[in-house]
Amino acid sequence: MSADVRAFQWPLRVYWEDTDAGGIVYYANYLKFFERARTEWLRSLGLAQSELAAQAGLVFVVADVHLRYAAPARLDDALQIQLRLQDFGAASLQVVQHAWLTDAQGAPVTLLCEATVRAGCVQAASLRPARIPAEMRTRISRWAAG
Amino acid sequence: MSADVRAFQWPLRVYWEDTDAGGIVYYANYLKFFERARTEWLRSLGLAQSELAAQAGLVFVVADVHLRYAAPARLDDALQIQLRLQDFGAASLQVVQHAWLTDAQGAPVTLLCEATVRAGCVQAASLRPARIPAEMRTRISRWAAG
Amino acid sequence: MSADVRAFQWPLRVYWEDTDAGGIVYYANYLKFFERARTEWLRSLGLAQSELAAQAGLVFVVADVHLRYAAPARLDDALQIQLRLQDFGAASLQVVQHAWLTDAQGAPVTLLCEATVRAGCVQAASLRPARIPAEMRTRISRWAAG
Amino acid sequence: MSADVRAFQWPLRVYWEDTDAGGIVYYANYLKFFERARTEWLRSLGLAQSELAAQAGLVFVVADVHLRYAAPARLDDALQIQLRLQDFGAASLQVVQHAWLTDAQGAPVTLLCEATVRAGCVQAASLRPARIPAEMRTRISRWAAG
Repeated sequence: MSADVRAFQWPLRVYWEDTDAGGIVYYANYLKFFERARTEWLRSLGLAQSELAAQAGLVFVVADVHLRYAAPARLDDALQIQLRLQDFGAASLQVVQHAWLTDAQGAPVTLLCEATVRAGCVQAASLRPARIPAEMRTRISRWAAG
Repeated sequence: MSADVRAFQWPLRVYWEDTDAGGIVYYANYLKFFERARTEWLRSLGLAQSELAAQAGLVFVVADVHLRYAAPARLDDALQIQLRLQDFGAASLQVVQHAWLTDAQGAPVTLLCEATVRAGCVQAASLRPARIPAEMRTRISRWAAG
Repeated sequence: MSADVRAFQWPLRVYWEDTDAGGIVYYANYLKFFERARTEWLRSLGLAQSELAAQAGLVFVVADVHLRYAAPARLDDALQIQLRLQDFGAASLQVVQHAWLTDAQGAPVTLLCEATVRAGCVQAASLRPARIPAEMRTRISRWAAG
Repeated sequence: MSADVRAFQWPLRVYWEDTDAGGIVYYANYLKFFERARTEWLRSLGLAQSELAAQAGLVFVVADVHLRYAAPARLDDALQIQLRLQDFGAASLQVVQHAWLTDAQGAPVTLLCEATVRAGCVQAASLRPARIPAEMRTRISRWAAG
């Protein structure tokens, strides 16, 4: 993925709840961090998942994740989660997400974890694949076009 | 509560996910342990909460918890959760729960955490109080009577 | 506690990770929310717990929590956590914390959960009680005095 | 991987804590399930990670995970986690893990999630790669040889 693909950025902080007895962020918790960033990316486009569920009966479920851990994060670390759209189909989308340790100014300095995440749009009741609503498609496409 | 009140016991193990950077079980996770034991107590009476929700539209929600932490638990520790019924009303129940560290034979040796938990039966959709179904009341009462 | 006791406020958002199959925030997760707010309160006073551990070998552990659940929170809800200092001893402190649902302007509108939390300062290695460092005592006292 | 590779099996139950507002197990929690099974696999070989850390100053950290979600699990579901050793080096190992929904007799009936997990042995203090201790290598090799 070329460096000039548009990125959404979301800051977060490492709390006690995120760490384990090894003194570092527990490996499963990066999936929480990445999910928060996807949710905030959609919210930044005016798309709340609770409304998508209530109004259209649709939810996004993750189908495939590839995680590569590069360095550990610790209590009180300030992180930046980046999200880039990699693929966008009728019923699914794929994003690449990076978790960075940031410096005191909030600039990313050390890569912690990289993930490729594919999520599908499904009917909440049946969990069967469903087309992403047109309005949502438009907003995401416009964002990607920058 | 007298020592001869009937107790339900549930064993569990401390995993990496349960610990924090202090090297001990994160304080919120005892609420997960206590909930597992309440769920297994009901299951031992033939009462599955997923069926209660699907068939009667009812769920139990916790209204009040008092937690007293006595000693820390660590990775790989084997715990025993004890549950005793303290109060049983038409739409709610109160239990006292203890988390014990156990020895190699599974016998409780060190008290880790004690909780008093009051849970109410509510309609899943509205979250309004509802009477505990008669069959459930009967099974719980019989269990308490020993 | 009188309404004019100084309050620290911390905003947060409800994500998928916070909810359970009942469609509401899982009861244990309020303890995570309250811990985040305590951590950010200390950080606002220039006190990072990771430094306290690294430099003085001290951590705070929760000894007692009383939680009262008033109303449920749901996915995408915006919350405000409030913290007020209730008691402040040589080796421990007690705070009262409230989780509020906020409106679109961030103002608290519905009380979700109230907690009284007592935490003690302990040596990280032995978990034995320890005096709160003088500099920390000073900063907390000044904050409380307004 | 051929079907006759030796498998370790670990049963577990889906609790409220594992689910999200979509009514299904939250996607990050399969990483917890898989980690519990890896820990119990090592324990079944007489290898406790807390002892490895205390005695040799070594921990295993996950370097790479590929997760493929096939079907959702729900509250009260009984699962079986399977683990097979795929690759075993001087300082790392790779396992394939499957989460299955089981029937009333505990037999796997529906594949829920599949993961390929690579974990490296590192020094706990520095997180630098370290050789897996000889005794551990022997026990794992013997197990794999069946």
